[in-house]
Amino acid sequence: MGRWQPDSRGRLQEAALALYSERGFDQTTAAQIAERAGLTERTFFRHFADKREVLFGGSALLKERIVAGVAGAAASDGPLDAVARGLDAAAAMLGESRRDLTRQRQAVLTANPELRERELAKLADYAATIADTLRRRGVSEPQATLAAESGMTILRVAMQRWAGEDDGRELNVIMRDAVADLRAVTAGG
Amino acid sequence: MGRWQPDSRGRLQEAALALYSERGFDQTTAAQIAERAGLTERTFFRHFADKREVLFGGSALLKERIVAGVAGAAASDGPLDAVARGLDAAAAMLGESRRDLTRQRQAVLTANPELRERELAKLADYAATIADTLRRRGVSEPQATLAAESGMTILRVAMQRWAGEDDGRELNVIMRDAVADLRAVTAGG
Repeated sequence: MGRWQPDSRGRLQEAALALYSERGFDQTTAAQIAERAGLTERTFFRHFADKREVLFGGSALLKERIVAGVAGAAASDGPLDAVARGLDAAAAMLGESRRDLTRQRQAVLTANPELRERELAKLADYAATIADTLRRRGVSEPQATLAAESGMTILRVAMQRWAGEDDGRELNVIMRDAVADLRAVTAGG
Repeated sequence: MGRWQPDSRGRLQEAALALYSERGFDQTTAAQIAERAGLTERTFFRHFADKREVLFGGSALLKERIVAGVAGAAASDGPLDAVARGLDAAAAMLGESRRDLTRQRQAVLTANPELRERELAKLADYAATIADTLRRRGVSEPQATLAAESGMTILRVAMQRWAGEDDGRELNVIMRDAVADLRAVTAGG
């Protein structure tokens, strides 16, 4: 125990989410997470700065992937099409997570206003960077911000559905369906 | 001094925003706001629970107006059209605020991550209630949530533009233009 193992990070995440669900985020300590994972507290802190980072650790990488997707969209793609490429990249990365862990994460966020605010702030940060990427593609304001923010709305809604009801659809399909739903909702008028 | 005056609330808001801008939100006390307004601290606390409430005080009423707008939309209105009625109601209420005070408020939020998170949480709460109102109009999910969240994106973008660049447009016009921009951005694909 305590020796580095290839799977330590995953075991810590799994243990953390189980404990956050069972006794609440505020009532869980890093020591308890490590114990549940059969690892030392030192190992926990080698992987995570604090217990919040277990929930937000992949954030920088996810943003990078989304932005790369948007930046790599065909020149002929409109703003929301470009954002949809970023969402494809997000689905590819997030879709590899275990659905039951994502479900637990969503439940923990729902139960904790502070974590929910943190999640919203994360998505607002993504949106700002995506809007910046769109402007560099020649999209003007407010269109760039509207498209970027719409993308983050779709991401949030799709993640909730994916974690919530298992209707057999993969995350990338749910994401694309949500893009189509947004188009339908905003059409006409 | 200290006697209740019809204009106390407005004077306190003005003084608070000036101080938040000058020395920062965290560095400002209720006592300083009262002093700047030529009122007592007791008067401050008769109007506001704390210095944060100066920035978020109208929140419940605004939500009420938006929801009434959505609920009162014609039965033939689509989801985003109904949300646009709510935005009209928001523009009518917010458009009466002094533009320079709104500008100061936006700047204070921008400078303070916690206040920004609070603002995002407020809009997320509005969105949840609007989605609920849409569902009661027969809109299903995820369309109701997508339309509601889109409305809050438009509200935020429009408020920023209204506070930011004075191009002569009134808030209600900026809001309607932003609805049209969102439709344009999401069209096709």
